[in-house]
Amino acid sequence: MDWHEIRDPQDAELDRLAERYRLHPLHVEDCRHRNQSAKVEESRGYLFVVLKTVHLTVDESLQVGDLDIFLGRDFLITVEEALCPPVRTLLEQIRGAAAGQRADQLFYRITDGVVDSYLPVLDHFSEVIDDLEDQVLDRPVPDTLARIFKTKRSLIELRRVLVNTRDVAGHMQRTESDLIHREMWPFLRDVYDHVSRNLDLVEMQRDLLTGSLDIYLSSVANRTNQVMKVLTVLGTIALPALVISGIYGMNLKGLPWAASPHGTAIVSGMMLATTVVLLGILRLMRWF
Amino acid sequence: MDWHEIRDPQDAELDRLAERYRLHPLHVEDCRHRNQSAKVEESRGYLFVVLKTVHLTVDESLQVGDLDIFLGRDFLITVEEALCPPVRTLLEQIRGAAAGQRADQLFYRITDGVVDSYLPVLDHFSEVIDDLEDQVLDRPVPDTLARIFKTKRSLIELRRVLVNTRDVAGHMQRTESDLIHREMWPFLRDVYDHVSRNLDLVEMQRDLLTGSLDIYLSSVANRTNQVMKVLTVLGTIALPALVISGIYGMNLKGLPWAASPHGTAIVSGMMLATTVVLLGILRLMRWF
Amino acid sequence: MDWHEIRDPQDAELDRLAERYRLHPLHVEDCRHRNQSAKVEESRGYLFVVLKTVHLTVDESLQVGDLDIFLGRDFLITVEEALCPPVRTLLEQIRGAAAGQRADQLFYRITDGVVDSYLPVLDHFSEVIDDLEDQVLDRPVPDTLARIFKTKRSLIELRRVLVNTRDVAGHMQRTESDLIHREMWPFLRDVYDHVSRNLDLVEMQRDLLTGSLDIYLSSVANRTNQVMKVLTVLGTIALPALVISGIYGMNLKGLPWAASPHGTAIVSGMMLATTVVLLGILRLMRWF
Amino acid sequence: MDWHEIRDPQDAELDRLAERYRLHPLHVEDCRHRNQSAKVEESRGYLFVVLKTVHLTVDESLQVGDLDIFLGRDFLITVEEALCPPVRTLLEQIRGAAAGQRADQLFYRITDGVVDSYLPVLDHFSEVIDDLEDQVLDRPVPDTLARIFKTKRSLIELRRVLVNTRDVAGHMQRTESDLIHREMWPFLRDVYDHVSRNLDLVEMQRDLLTGSLDIYLSSVANRTNQVMKVLTVLGTIALPALVISGIYGMNLKGLPWAASPHGTAIVSGMMLATTVVLLGILRLMRWF
Amino acid sequence: MDWHEIRDPQDAELDRLAERYRLHPLHVEDCRHRNQSAKVEESRGYLFVVLKTVHLTVDESLQVGDLDIFLGRDFLITVEEALCPPVRTLLEQIRGAAAGQRADQLFYRITDGVVDSYLPVLDHFSEVIDDLEDQVLDRPVPDTLARIFKTKRSLIELRRVLVNTRDVAGHMQRTESDLIHREMWPFLRDVYDHVSRNLDLVEMQRDLLTGSLDIYLSSVANRTNQVMKVLTVLGTIALPALVISGIYGMNLKGLPWAASPHGTAIVSGMMLATTVVLLGILRLMRWF
Repeated sequence: MDWHEIRDPQDAELDRLAERYRLHPLHVEDCRHRNQSAKVEESRGYLFVVLKTVHLTVDESLQVGDLDIFLGRDFLITVEEALCPPVRTLLEQIRGAAAGQRADQLFYRITDGVVDSYLPVLDHFSEVIDDLEDQVLDRPVPDTLARIFKTKRSLIELRRVLVNTRDVAGHMQRTESDLIHREMWPFLRDVYDHVSRNLDLVEMQRDLLTGSLDIYLSSVANRTNQVMKVLTVLGTIALPALVISGIYGMNLKGLPWAASPHGTAIVSGMMLATTVVLLGILRLMRWF
Repeated sequence: MDWHEIRDPQDAELDRLAERYRLHPLHVEDCRHRNQSAKVEESRGYLFVVLKTVHLTVDESLQVGDLDIFLGRDFLITVEEALCPPVRTLLEQIRGAAAGQRADQLFYRITDGVVDSYLPVLDHFSEVIDDLEDQVLDRPVPDTLARIFKTKRSLIELRRVLVNTRDVAGHMQRTESDLIHREMWPFLRDVYDHVSRNLDLVEMQRDLLTGSLDIYLSSVANRTNQVMKVLTVLGTIALPALVISGIYGMNLKGLPWAASPHGTAIVSGMMLATTVVLLGILRLMRWF
Repeated sequence: MDWHEIRDPQDAELDRLAERYRLHPLHVEDCRHRNQSAKVEESRGYLFVVLKTVHLTVDESLQVGDLDIFLGRDFLITVEEALCPPVRTLLEQIRGAAAGQRADQLFYRITDGVVDSYLPVLDHFSEVIDDLEDQVLDRPVPDTLARIFKTKRSLIELRRVLVNTRDVAGHMQRTESDLIHREMWPFLRDVYDHVSRNLDLVEMQRDLLTGSLDIYLSSVANRTNQVMKVLTVLGTIALPALVISGIYGMNLKGLPWAASPHGTAIVSGMMLATTVVLLGILRLMRWF
Repeated sequence: MDWHEIRDPQDAELDRLAERYRLHPLHVEDCRHRNQSAKVEESRGYLFVVLKTVHLTVDESLQVGDLDIFLGRDFLITVEEALCPPVRTLLEQIRGAAAGQRADQLFYRITDGVVDSYLPVLDHFSEVIDDLEDQVLDRPVPDTLARIFKTKRSLIELRRVLVNTRDVAGHMQRTESDLIHREMWPFLRDVYDHVSRNLDLVEMQRDLLTGSLDIYLSSVANRTNQVMKVLTVLGTIALPALVISGIYGMNLKGLPWAASPHGTAIVSGMMLATTVVLLGILRLMRWF
Repeated sequence: MDWHEIRDPQDAELDRLAERYRLHPLHVEDCRHRNQSAKVEESRGYLFVVLKTVHLTVDESLQVGDLDIFLGRDFLITVEEALCPPVRTLLEQIRGAAAGQRADQLFYRITDGVVDSYLPVLDHFSEVIDDLEDQVLDRPVPDTLARIFKTKRSLIELRRVLVNTRDVAGHMQRTESDLIHREMWPFLRDVYDHVSRNLDLVEMQRDLLTGSLDIYLSSVANRTNQVMKVLTVLGTIALPALVISGIYGMNLKGLPWAASPHGTAIVSGMMLATTVVLLGILRLMRWF
């Protein structure tokens, strides 16, 4: 059993293998163009499978790449299109223990490993969403919006990867091809279950994220409502004093108590009383 | 008929049983890893079923665990992965009355009991949503948002459990396997109906919860509108007095009635009249 | 042909009939537990059908009950689980004209009548939604929200009843059972069409209701906008007068025209001019 | 080939035809009850087809009616249930050219014509939505909301008509019945394509309409934001003058420059400077 | 093999070809009416395929046209209904290299090229959405709304084109017709994959666009909240000074410190102290 590992799709080695194993030109072309969808295609003598590698870069943005696999009866060709450290490590581990394994067994190990490598990414998003949820409730700031948008974008992309990968796993598990021994079926079904569970998780995360955007809006509306109330309460406290002092500032004759020595006390009392009555009304309307 | 109850999935007893009944290594692994989805898998000589146990903790948060069942012709193995008090009680009751029962009859009782144990949880959420509905209409506060979010999260999780459980029940009810006697089919169909009804209920609850978030936002917008109106009415009452008293406070000559002994009365009348006219206009615009 | 009418599911008569006609214990249990979903189950010698009765109580809230039917070759058993006046009347009418009818003919009449009894309820909701639509556009008040929420809840429940009833009608119309004569098929298809049309209507009503909630929010936002504009226009009218009168109220020397006998006229003119200019600017910005 | 045109479903002529051609009582009943859904039913010796006629009344509201067709081997019965002028014209045109045509050919012409008559209605809604789009962006007023709601209602109804009509066309095109010659199949497929395209259009229009409601809300929120800014800018301009003039209006001793002949100039300068500084700060915050 | 290129559907040449190759009148009619949906129809002796051409005009609005193809065993007829420069270029290139190619090979090249010509359009929308996302977060202005609406409209139309094109590709790839050699199947499957990927992309873009509208609203709400806070802070700073100076402006006797030579200092201190206390309270409420 030969395992040909190609780390650069432009490598001429791929052309030599294509000739040797009679690979379809469209499949070789797929290897060389990035951004394929995960898929499986049965061809004469081999299966062509595209898997998506997913990891987080240092600045926590999602990085998606391709891993192309040709699975033949006695050969396996893997083509890595973008450097994804966890998948690189995985392939090295599997190669280390590859002796005496059939091609379909290696293929299962690779697929299983790639699918497992999605989990840390999903866990990361779970944490991000928990964090965003706290933010939208406690202190909604414009930066929260930017993070929600960025996370949404990543989840949309991740969902697309998982939907296609699930289709691949579903197809593999039912394939009539004799390239895969029947005893491998429960294992491929297990991969399918894993991907389905991951997909459920991403759907839940998308639901929660959408919810957190709604709550952001409600939370901001609520805060504006609070600010308005404070403004109105401030106005309520100040207005009687302003109106009454305005009246007593007029250059007119006949203002009551204007000449009284207790004038200031009486008028201040009026101001205070009016303010207290207004605040009482707001209190009745349950504003604070 | 032997019923092996395993309460700790790490127990070495499970390995002994796996050897004795030739259980598939992937199924044993599933028992030992938590957070499986509810599923059923047919294997040589037995059915492997994962059910989800659901209960509410003391602080009313949703706790979801696994209950793994191996159903053979003459044996039943149950593996509990997390302590769920209602399911623990259920298993003890069933064991107490297990004498002379076939494995598939016990299996039905367990499944039926687990599904029944979802009902109190659903009832709890019905009450929470009724309560939230009152809150969003009467007194929408930020804390309401946090409760809506938490409930939404639980319902999303519960829905996922029920969707998978319904698939399990649907599969069981149509299974070709001779491990389940035909006379049990109506009973399994009954379980399927129960789960479907629960799922309908959760969908209704999700719909209502989404509605309550929309109503929260509308309710807050409405309250802000009320606050704005109060602020404007306050301004309307105060402004004429402020403007007119400001004018009569100017150090200028020739203000009308400035020297009149009835000046104060005339000017106060002007203030009152202007305020009444403005309030009348707002009244016409149906503000209060 | 015997028609057994049971008005209280706890009645021991039901047990006697169960024994006589060999009814499945699960079906008898279903009759005695309320809140079943509409469903049809084929059993040996009879069909078990659960229909939902729907009517409005005096305070216009939706009341949903069960009507269980056992349809045998030469017997019909109806079990009413909750008092639904329109269905009670219906059953009495059918019984009055039952002489000489086959069981499946009576069954069709009952089903048709139950489905027809949904129409007044749907008409009621159509009126409620028309009314709500006017309210959200003309005078959105918090009470409108409570009515929208209550109506939404009823429609969600009604939709669930109709979806399940449509499945029942669809199943009946295709049933292989010889309990239903072929000539009845077009009639059962007619029932199916009725339910489908009702379901279309409920979906339309839900769509309209969701729309009316969106419009409520937009309508309130618009009103707040109007209130803000009034507040700003008020401020625009008052501010120049306040500022200028404030300035002329200062105990300072050298205020222009302070000693002029036309001072008041000149300064009032300034106030008026500034206000007019500001209002003109707002007018240009098309605020009113 | 006989074409019986019935313009009033209550006409006794329909009963005579029902007897002569042995029409099913349920179909005759359907003709006499309005508000059927578009549908096709195969019966012994004929096809019963319900089409929906759609036109706009003078006040631009949607008017939906029924056109019932019985298609036999050598007869055609059309029953118009509501006056729809375009369909009336259509039937007259077809009748004018009916000589020598088979029943299924006439049926195709009628169906094709009815489906074509939907187009002007769809074009009307396209224009309405274009117009609404301009309104929500330029000058969102409450009346816009009422038009959005009314259009939404019409589109929901139109969609329902089209979905059912598409099912009818799909059914006709695959029917096993020998009432329709095989050569008519491409023509019926053409009708199906037309309806599908119309349905796509209605879905697009609904999408756009929903979008325009969202944009209405955003647009109003934006305008409120603008109003608030204007209010705040006004306050910013006036407040320093008010505060400073208030201070210099106090009956206190020791106010700086109070006795200076340049007092007014100095204090006015202070007012101006404070206002300019505040406006500068708002400018830095990019408010205008 | 003859390739007939028709650039004007009204060309009488089309009629001559229709006669020669016995094209169905409905297909010729489809060529002459614009705004067909992408579709494929099998007819006697040829396949009739409608593809949609898509390009951006100078002002970046989406232009959609039709490209009709008749694929026979030894002939190919292409009918361009609207000028689409990229497709014009494409057809010229293919014609240049057409010598010795079979009709189905040319057909594949045309289809592949048309589908590839969608990519620059999709890339354009990706950039527009990235740009809109920045705008809604940084500086949401009404013009942003207009662009969101216009982009939404284009994406809705593009989605419709792609959904129909995908159906065409799916149909071609499974067609039983012997007009397409089996060796072409992987190539047609490749086209199908391309269209599916494009459709995924458009769905993602629609999701992101919907998200950006939600974020616009949240962003504006947040800004209004900021403006309100600034207004309230301004009020907080000014009100104590206004109230206190109003009181000391009254023509009353007995105001404390009114006669004191330090009156101004004391009173100014009071103003400052009250303002500082109020600002401190707002600070505690974490307003700035």
